[in-house]
Amino acid sequence: MCVPGCQETILERLSRRRFLTGALAATAAAAVAGPAAAAESRKAPPANLGGKIREIVEMTHVMGPDFPTFSGAVNLEIEVLFTFAQDGFNFKRWLLIEHTGTHMDAPLHFTAEGLSADMIPIDQLVVPLAVVDIRHKAAANPDAQVTPDDLRAWEKKHGRIPDGACVAMYSGWEEKLYTPGFRNADAGGVMHFPGFHLEAVQFLARERHVNGIAVDTLSLDFGPSPDFATHYFWLGEGRWGMENVANLGKVPPVGSTFIAGGPRIAGATGGPSRCLALVHHPRRGHHG
Amino acid sequence: MCVPGCQETILERLSRRRFLTGALAATAAAAVAGPAAAAESRKAPPANLGGKIREIVEMTHVMGPDFPTFSGAVNLEIEVLFTFAQDGFNFKRWLLIEHTGTHMDAPLHFTAEGLSADMIPIDQLVVPLAVVDIRHKAAANPDAQVTPDDLRAWEKKHGRIPDGACVAMYSGWEEKLYTPGFRNADAGGVMHFPGFHLEAVQFLARERHVNGIAVDTLSLDFGPSPDFATHYFWLGEGRWGMENVANLGKVPPVGSTFIAGGPRIAGATGGPSRCLALVHHPRRGHHG
Repeated sequence: MCVPGCQETILERLSRRRFLTGALAATAAAAVAGPAAAAESRKAPPANLGGKIREIVEMTHVMGPDFPTFSGAVNLEIEVLFTFAQDGFNFKRWLLIEHTGTHMDAPLHFTAEGLSADMIPIDQLVVPLAVVDIRHKAAANPDAQVTPDDLRAWEKKHGRIPDGACVAMYSGWEEKLYTPGFRNADAGGVMHFPGFHLEAVQFLARERHVNGIAVDTLSLDFGPSPDFATHYFWLGEGRWGMENVANLGKVPPVGSTFIAGGPRIAGATGGPSRCLALVHHPRRGHHG
Repeated sequence: MCVPGCQETILERLSRRRFLTGALAATAAAAVAGPAAAAESRKAPPANLGGKIREIVEMTHVMGPDFPTFSGAVNLEIEVLFTFAQDGFNFKRWLLIEHTGTHMDAPLHFTAEGLSADMIPIDQLVVPLAVVDIRHKAAANPDAQVTPDDLRAWEKKHGRIPDGACVAMYSGWEEKLYTPGFRNADAGGVMHFPGFHLEAVQFLARERHVNGIAVDTLSLDFGPSPDFATHYFWLGEGRWGMENVANLGKVPPVGSTFIAGGPRIAGATGGPSRCLALVHHPRRGHHG
């Protein structure tokens, strides 16, 4: 049911976005030269994962075939192969597009030779979580983006972004899940939802030591992005992203460990992930 | 490539095992009456997750289409939908049988109405890990099983099995991965590898408070099991299992937190999972 029309829909959307035309494609190609080498040399410092755990927070949405997708097509089909009533056990098979549900974008997704999901070392997936709340501006403007100013304002309140962190955009978009407002496509088919501005991820890559970024929307880039500039830059840097993350409102701005449980399927460009946060007891001298 | 022959192969194997015949089926049906209710009433005590983390251990195998399977069939196909060279991004689709690779068995796998993987609360998946090393007896006998005596011997050395734990069988079978010895099928097609004895999981369910069990083999039951007695009992109790777990030799017998990152696909009877351990700094008074 997904297959016919699915590729066509995506290609059409991408074509409409001038995804592969002229100067843009050249820029993208340049940006991703040698991403594997870049990832190797990056040497993210080991994360300081804090002390005793006081709470575990689920950050993965349950996903069925009706989970909203970037393309608008159905990305998951579930086939029942055996049933308890007839066979004595239940057993299913999935036809699953990698970029569905709460899922990872691995560097390979937007690079020629970047790391696939299975190649990302585990200590880059268990990291301090920094939650940047942009709900106020996202409510006023669905095309809002996390900017370097938002990150600097966060640091004034919560201290420097922890080394090795995952920085999450908390736009509040999760409330719109399973409503048309989640994809929020206009009459021309262009979506409108928040994301990370290119300059914000450039700041995180160059001025801070960050392993991953996460969003509570369908894309690391904001909905109307014409060029996936944030994807190309961030994944080109050999770092990972996580999309459709759940329950960002249930974790503190700082003081928890994010576990980005991406798939270990060989060559995966990303895929459905089990994400959760371990919320630590506050340490003395840390105030939010 | 998987599809033709796959179901037939499994059905044939199960039939050879007298999977659904007579008294056995009746026993199984009785054992699993009301598993959802059982899970609800179980009330595993909250896990004590220890202090600061000193190491993160990967416990998930990378899986490609050649990963060994219980049935012997290919359980994973990967289809390339878009490539960076042609399309500017990489994008794939998986045809994936749930019970493949490092994967969860949810109660629903061997019950009529038990919890599916997505329904298991996250605090039952982040739990203390107890690693029971039976390598010595597994080397002498591939049909070795973890018995109540093994568990009692473990407790004499390491203290009582922690409340809420995952108890893992470390048989050393991982060393045989990608060799015929991993499935270790004899001329009659019967496999020979270690697993949990029924009496051991009865002990864990009735005498201890344990959320899950894990194995470094293809099945919770030992290879020649004629009846999946351990599966039926353990999953019937509303608890989970994890199969093909990696690197059990890299974690201490006690003192780490296991994260059983199962899939959140609606209605999943289990599925590929991201598993890892957080190894804590030793606490005073604990000696292995």
